[in-house]
Amino acid sequence: MTNFSGIFPYLVSPVDNQSGKVLERSLRRLVEHLINSGVHGLSPLGSTGEFAYLSTAQREEIVRIVLDQTAGRVPVLAGVAAFSTREAQEQAERYARLGVDGLVLIMQKMFPVSPQGQTRFFADVAEALPDVSMTLYTNPGLLGGDIPMDVLDDLSHVKNIEYIKDASGNTGRILTMINRFGDRMRVFSASAHIPLMVFKLGGVGWMAGPACVMPKQCVELYNLAQVDDWDRALEKQKSMWRINEAFTKYALAACIKGALNIQGFEVGSPIAPQQPLSAEAMNELRAILADL
Amino acid sequence: MTNFSGIFPYLVSPVDNQSGKVLERSLRRLVEHLINSGVHGLSPLGSTGEFAYLSTAQREEIVRIVLDQTAGRVPVLAGVAAFSTREAQEQAERYARLGVDGLVLIMQKMFPVSPQGQTRFFADVAEALPDVSMTLYTNPGLLGGDIPMDVLDDLSHVKNIEYIKDASGNTGRILTMINRFGDRMRVFSASAHIPLMVFKLGGVGWMAGPACVMPKQCVELYNLAQVDDWDRALEKQKSMWRINEAFTKYALAACIKGALNIQGFEVGSPIAPQQPLSAEAMNELRAILADL
Amino acid sequence: MTNFSGIFPYLVSPVDNQSGKVLERSLRRLVEHLINSGVHGLSPLGSTGEFAYLSTAQREEIVRIVLDQTAGRVPVLAGVAAFSTREAQEQAERYARLGVDGLVLIMQKMFPVSPQGQTRFFADVAEALPDVSMTLYTNPGLLGGDIPMDVLDDLSHVKNIEYIKDASGNTGRILTMINRFGDRMRVFSASAHIPLMVFKLGGVGWMAGPACVMPKQCVELYNLAQVDDWDRALEKQKSMWRINEAFTKYALAACIKGALNIQGFEVGSPIAPQQPLSAEAMNELRAILADL
Amino acid sequence: MTNFSGIFPYLVSPVDNQSGKVLERSLRRLVEHLINSGVHGLSPLGSTGEFAYLSTAQREEIVRIVLDQTAGRVPVLAGVAAFSTREAQEQAERYARLGVDGLVLIMQKMFPVSPQGQTRFFADVAEALPDVSMTLYTNPGLLGGDIPMDVLDDLSHVKNIEYIKDASGNTGRILTMINRFGDRMRVFSASAHIPLMVFKLGGVGWMAGPACVMPKQCVELYNLAQVDDWDRALEKQKSMWRINEAFTKYALAACIKGALNIQGFEVGSPIAPQQPLSAEAMNELRAILADL
Repeated sequence: MTNFSGIFPYLVSPVDNQSGKVLERSLRRLVEHLINSGVHGLSPLGSTGEFAYLSTAQREEIVRIVLDQTAGRVPVLAGVAAFSTREAQEQAERYARLGVDGLVLIMQKMFPVSPQGQTRFFADVAEALPDVSMTLYTNPGLLGGDIPMDVLDDLSHVKNIEYIKDASGNTGRILTMINRFGDRMRVFSASAHIPLMVFKLGGVGWMAGPACVMPKQCVELYNLAQVDDWDRALEKQKSMWRINEAFTKYALAACIKGALNIQGFEVGSPIAPQQPLSAEAMNELRAILADL
Repeated sequence: MTNFSGIFPYLVSPVDNQSGKVLERSLRRLVEHLINSGVHGLSPLGSTGEFAYLSTAQREEIVRIVLDQTAGRVPVLAGVAAFSTREAQEQAERYARLGVDGLVLIMQKMFPVSPQGQTRFFADVAEALPDVSMTLYTNPGLLGGDIPMDVLDDLSHVKNIEYIKDASGNTGRILTMINRFGDRMRVFSASAHIPLMVFKLGGVGWMAGPACVMPKQCVELYNLAQVDDWDRALEKQKSMWRINEAFTKYALAACIKGALNIQGFEVGSPIAPQQPLSAEAMNELRAILADL
Repeated sequence: MTNFSGIFPYLVSPVDNQSGKVLERSLRRLVEHLINSGVHGLSPLGSTGEFAYLSTAQREEIVRIVLDQTAGRVPVLAGVAAFSTREAQEQAERYARLGVDGLVLIMQKMFPVSPQGQTRFFADVAEALPDVSMTLYTNPGLLGGDIPMDVLDDLSHVKNIEYIKDASGNTGRILTMINRFGDRMRVFSASAHIPLMVFKLGGVGWMAGPACVMPKQCVELYNLAQVDDWDRALEKQKSMWRINEAFTKYALAACIKGALNIQGFEVGSPIAPQQPLSAEAMNELRAILADL
Repeated sequence: MTNFSGIFPYLVSPVDNQSGKVLERSLRRLVEHLINSGVHGLSPLGSTGEFAYLSTAQREEIVRIVLDQTAGRVPVLAGVAAFSTREAQEQAERYARLGVDGLVLIMQKMFPVSPQGQTRFFADVAEALPDVSMTLYTNPGLLGGDIPMDVLDDLSHVKNIEYIKDASGNTGRILTMINRFGDRMRVFSASAHIPLMVFKLGGVGWMAGPACVMPKQCVELYNLAQVDDWDRALEKQKSMWRINEAFTKYALAACIKGALNIQGFEVGSPIAPQQPLSAEAMNELRAILADL
């Protein structure tokens, strides 16, 4: 049983739109910067990582680079995202062989899948790799519907399903999960939540794209929450929330890539047909980052 | 410029859920049966073909088999479905090399894509293969939002974008398209429409999964519409609509596969985590097919 | 048993936004104009009539004026729209006492109502006035969800529920209803449909706001459909559809009021907080009406 | 400028479904019980009060009774709910004349209303009664869409618009509002939120239907938050959340009325066509209330 907690930035996927090549140097620089900023883990191939827009080869290359650069200093939890169970299993095995510390399981949907079908998807992937720590991912906005609470409850009894990352924006669901699952399945907060609130309710950490752009602030917020310094934590949370609001005005991946480019990380554009931010939006981001 | 028209069944994708192998014999039998029933074309890798649930290799294998079995007797329009432009282009080139007569372009979405981004996606794929006939596919229910009419209008001016398959269920949109695009981009009806109405408005054909199960009836309906025998066509349409209603009670792919299994085609289950129809639903299907 | 059929314009509700007074002279002129244009009936207090924005007194006044001006020349079917059964019953009794020829029943929703609750709402209102012809109204977009087909089927057996006006835009539902209810409950088309298609499927008429603005064209379309002159009817339908598209770009009531004002009927603005059309939109309407 | 804060139960509307009479004795008993339980205010005619299902006369009668029974011991904030500005203004004047301490403004929607239209609706009602404290109400689930943040910002500058009750369930929006409006417009939490979190972020109170059923617990939670006893407050919040979850499984008004009936308050059924809870659901409620 693992004990992951703290700040896990969702990494962007720096890719050259012409050649399709992963921008290895940029990705290594970002990983290095984040670890030096004190983050507690890294999560490539999440939603901020534009998973659906990457080929099999690009995904594998990204996981390989992140693991190599991290060199065991912090845990790496890679995203497994697929429509079919078979494809999810293949990704999971591939990343496990590369040496990830855990996997974040994402079920993409086109046709409706019954509750039993949903349970089977996650359980089949998890049970095939009993030594790998699994984190469930639920995001009604992005994935077209939520995972029912009873399915989550069933899955919380699968031994290596240890965490859930809920991106619904609904703090009430977080409290329901913490009340209901306890230590069987611990909860990570997402960009849509106010993480300080989730920490206070008993959440163990925060997985989110904006942590790429303000890793130190995220770590400080987490640390203040750990020592129960509520007043200072709340001040920090309030100023960070303004940044988060600005980010959510635009497509998330485009925004995080734009902000990282402003910070000098040369992570490229969002993957086509997604478009980069407009000049106007980039100026807005610049002003926000200057305030940081 | 091609002149596709008539009944184009959306082929199911027969795949063994354990091994992931395409069930070649079943697929060949189905293709043979449909051509013998008089259909005017075939469309593998559409929504009924569970495109999102298939690997790159499975998709290619299915196109290869369908083309080989068809042997030029009717045109084959294969589905190209991807989130990224690059992936769509790779699929399109692959299927063009295999010898398809046309492609049906499907843009999957996770993050919102701007109108310009949508135009670029379809135009970039079409313009890279100027000798291949392209059909746009729009399905707000399945793909999370419609393609704006102005984007469609722009795309209708791309030389090899010749058809659109609208699966919105909204006949008004069909009339708007026919009024607006005329011969620049001709319209195919979908399962969600009453095809007889679409034929009368000026639509050129019908691409749909249920045509796998009742190909002769679909061809007869089309022929009656061609000779303006409205009264008999309407009678036929009414009885076929009852079957269509039954199909839409359940997940479409599961339903068409179930019905084909009842008819003896051994096409296997829907691809996991999708579940096969319940025994009860299968009995309902059996009764409907007996009526046919 | 009544035998309503043909074109029933949904009347706008001309009201002075300052005083709240019904603009009686304008309403009488509009009624007179529509009857002289050959419409087969009139329907005050429908969605185009902004029912939700009118007080009890305003609604009653409008029904009174329309009945008085019509003087029995065509049937008048007034809208009954309420959240509670009691309120619907009171409206129904009031309009019946005023002498309407029928009522259009509209259930507004705030909380979800079970299928049984929905059946009771309509049946309770209809059964309390067994001598009044009732038309059900269903509009998923405007009323937050559709009436389930099984509820409609149950209600089709209530003796004085004779018609249904479906405003879903989904022609497939119309065919389902006609197949299923036959003469037990006949179908009226709405603005969202292509009425010519609905006539051909067996629909008995068209209730819609745009008929206020182009009554003669609507009547001609209906007449061409009655004598099976499909080719000319389709031509007419195509040109009318362009107008309908323009109307649906804007809020429907604002648009019909704007168009009638251009035509000289002085029906006032939409009821606040709804806003009148912009100058730009009014110019667009002017161009469309000039084409008519 | 008022200084409302604390627990404001949303009162149910006890009405006899046969006669339509307000159940005065039950309503008085409930008001008395809640005041004796220490609540800081009362809010009749909110969503829990089934506002849309009440006639003009019933609404006025309810406000009269609540004011009379309260006799100034706590502030009474009555709901003003209407589609048209005129109707909202009439309600507001009526309740102001009866002596309410404030009004909760609810804009019902059928057609889309532009941002300017929304601003005008609320500002026109508020500015006509400059001496009455106004609370805005926003509930995207129940009212079909949210009030845009820029509209809220404009309205926060209207002198007597002092509070906002946000029922979106999205805690992030609450923090955005508190950051943005500060003391210009203070925030009340709703049933959909975890009120303890909202108190911690700077929210001034909690307006919600469940407070009818567990007023003492709500007041205790509020008091623990006031003295910063976070650990005990969180324990209390967790146990109360389980009750809240149970309530939200069913239609809210039906559920609160059912729970109050179990507690002996004889508040009658939800207003038809809404249906009372099933026997099974009532048993579930009984078990929950016994735990309390």
